[in-house]
Amino acid sequence: MSEQLTLYLHKLSPYSAKVELALVEANAPYRAYQIDLPNKPEWFASKVNPVGKVPAVTYGGPNVDPDDPSPLSAKIAESNVILEFLADLYPDSGLLPKDPVLRAKVRLFIDVTTKQVEAPLYDFIRGQGSYDNVLKGIEFIQGLLEEGTDFAVGDHYSNADACISPALARLKIITETDLGKFPVGMGYKLGEELKGPKFAKFRKYAQGMLDRPSLKQTHDEEYTITFFKTRFTERVQ
Amino acid sequence: MSEQLTLYLHKLSPYSAKVELALVEANAPYRAYQIDLPNKPEWFASKVNPVGKVPAVTYGGPNVDPDDPSPLSAKIAESNVILEFLADLYPDSGLLPKDPVLRAKVRLFIDVTTKQVEAPLYDFIRGQGSYDNVLKGIEFIQGLLEEGTDFAVGDHYSNADACISPALARLKIITETDLGKFPVGMGYKLGEELKGPKFAKFRKYAQGMLDRPSLKQTHDEEYTITFFKTRFTERVQ
Repeated sequence: MSEQLTLYLHKLSPYSAKVELALVEANAPYRAYQIDLPNKPEWFASKVNPVGKVPAVTYGGPNVDPDDPSPLSAKIAESNVILEFLADLYPDSGLLPKDPVLRAKVRLFIDVTTKQVEAPLYDFIRGQGSYDNVLKGIEFIQGLLEEGTDFAVGDHYSNADACISPALARLKIITETDLGKFPVGMGYKLGEELKGPKFAKFRKYAQGMLDRPSLKQTHDEEYTITFFKTRFTERVQ
Repeated sequence: MSEQLTLYLHKLSPYSAKVELALVEANAPYRAYQIDLPNKPEWFASKVNPVGKVPAVTYGGPNVDPDDPSPLSAKIAESNVILEFLADLYPDSGLLPKDPVLRAKVRLFIDVTTKQVEAPLYDFIRGQGSYDNVLKGIEFIQGLLEEGTDFAVGDHYSNADACISPALARLKIITETDLGKFPVGMGYKLGEELKGPKFAKFRKYAQGMLDRPSLKQTHDEEYTITFFKTRFTERVQ
């Protein structure tokens, strides 16, 4: 029997979503426990992640309630570290290919996603980033995509796809709703720009990821839009 | 027979140094080829790393001259991605332990090193970072160190040690020479602070890393100091 795995997450956290996507795609058994980030339970920092951030995972140890974590389980934090952990736990899941060179390709895709897609996009949504950097990151990622496959690397869903998908889901929202702290209209503008022939390969890939059942299962679009509406009330006109 | 592996690097690049350290510690055969960064050969971006950065690795393919890379070899970039690649190529090297939880510990150490030690330290040296952030990063890393071992994780040299060692070597230089774009005296001050009992565990670990033959082989301290002297002539007095 396999060890217990509990994922502590938050419904709006794209970093949590990557990990949950990988778990679902790997068909791995897990328990999900929502952490109310603005009102974190005291035990979360003391017993799970001293840094207090989600996602975090407990692995192994006795089968305790998620709100009473055992000192005997391993505690693992940082989304990209957890993705590697899941690939190690499930070597046949395809989360990482077997071939070292292909594994490196997955990791490069994750590195580029983390530094050049996620960071600029979330900065842009918070009104702290540049429109051009968002586009540049998307262009860079598009350059890594290969022809003849629906996946980031090779012919199987991998950690690379899990890593970028939550960002793709948020990109969809801001280009369709214009919700964000960027100047009014810039979300729509980004959407129009991404509809051009220059981004055809990226668009096809992104749509494939957004259509996956795993994404629909782990990403509540309506809930995220409602939150964005509440959060981004003050806008630069 | 194993595939060829060529490491393109620069003598002053700490990111190159991590990879070379891992290769030396894994006792892996490799060729090192210095890239003159201010005068990069044209073929480097077109044939090895489109981004133009070191370190980069070619792996496999025919045994060609390093300055005439073959299209048939795999090309791998980004220091932390290459570290993982080496651990995949040499699963018995100890660069990554076998146990998934220990592997996650190595990766968390690398994640913290990258975000909270390297970035603040190199910013500080360039005169763009805060002294407090450097200390905070060191404190965080110290918190991850376990008692009873000379290594970052477990009882073997791993990618975690390779990742942080070039930063430790530069930390030694600035605390001993005060060379950097920070205000005069702040390098010495940092050195004094790190001599306190609060940082005893970190100091012991760092000294162990600095004493390793692999570090002496891959890090030219005199050369680095000479470069720092040339570079950091204008200082905040």
